[in-house]
Amino acid sequence: MSDAHLFESQLSSEHVFKGRLLDARRDSVRLPNGQTATREYIVHPGAVMIVPVLREPATHWDLVMERQFRYPIGQVMIEFPAGKRDTGEEILACAKRELLEETGYSARQWAHTGQLHPLIAYSTEVIDVWFARYLSPGERSLDPGEFLDVFEANSTELLAWCRDGQVTDAKTLTAVLWIQMIMAGQWSLDWKLQP
Amino acid sequence: MSDAHLFESQLSSEHVFKGRLLDARRDSVRLPNGQTATREYIVHPGAVMIVPVLREPATHWDLVMERQFRYPIGQVMIEFPAGKRDTGEEILACAKRELLEETGYSARQWAHTGQLHPLIAYSTEVIDVWFARYLSPGERSLDPGEFLDVFEANSTELLAWCRDGQVTDAKTLTAVLWIQMIMAGQWSLDWKLQP
Repeated sequence: MSDAHLFESQLSSEHVFKGRLLDARRDSVRLPNGQTATREYIVHPGAVMIVPVLREPATHWDLVMERQFRYPIGQVMIEFPAGKRDTGEEILACAKRELLEETGYSARQWAHTGQLHPLIAYSTEVIDVWFARYLSPGERSLDPGEFLDVFEANSTELLAWCRDGQVTDAKTLTAVLWIQMIMAGQWSLDWKLQP
Repeated sequence: MSDAHLFESQLSSEHVFKGRLLDARRDSVRLPNGQTATREYIVHPGAVMIVPVLREPATHWDLVMERQFRYPIGQVMIEFPAGKRDTGEEILACAKRELLEETGYSARQWAHTGQLHPLIAYSTEVIDVWFARYLSPGERSLDPGEFLDVFEANSTELLAWCRDGQVTDAKTLTAVLWIQMIMAGQWSLDWKLQP
């Protein structure tokens, strides 16, 4: 089935705001019916999320998670480690760097599960999702102005937090879908040695 | 355990961009260590997502979904119906309105599962998640400039699309976590008659 009846095409594009973090564009687009419309959106370099698995007994997984104050929400959020890609940085290198910087852990095996788009209405951001295991602890090195707690959670309590509204971060909830489907034996991870 | 060692507090706040869709602010904040930093973010009025359930046999659920071109991503995305709250609009009223406008369906029973935050790094957006059942078809009325296909998907194929990367929209993936946990008998919905 063709999607041509849904496509919008760019007519023009302009920068409307360039801050320290945010980079916003406004485009004029041609709609499927030939009319024109305006689209405003944030341009983002892409990000990674890492699900660090400490132990995998049959009954549950032990995971490395973070608690971080997120200013736009005004709350401390429970999340998996994540971060923005540096210019030209390869996604696995970014995942290794973010895991090390935020938690101090290095991992011997990595599995890429895919991508997610956190906010398709007004951001280009795409997050590559990695699982990491065989973890070795080390020294973390947070960015200046970054404050976060690292803690261990097991998958049973994590699922309860998702149900009860203590976890509301969409990328973390998406990771929990993978964790649940893998633990149920329905999906699998393609682990690779990544020294 | 106290979170005080993570909190950031507002020192000042200014509008930096006000477009037709996007509304951006830049705040100066005091960090937990007493230093100051800048936070830029999008202010959003909040949104709803609806998971419309057509049929619930024991083996799978039949769901109403949408295919919509999302300009920032440059792709047609598979999603559950969703939309932004109007000023002062109550969340269930918003969910009923968006379901009707986008799909033509009305529902007799509704269940609120909670909230999700799609992009905690730079948006205040919160999405209230509703499940809807006992659906009656009717006439849809899309906004001007809105083009989307409505289709039926069953939960088995939806899960396969999530695993294979055909569904990457974070809000939809979060809905699938709920669908999976409910179908597995681990979570339940609190259905209410909402005429």
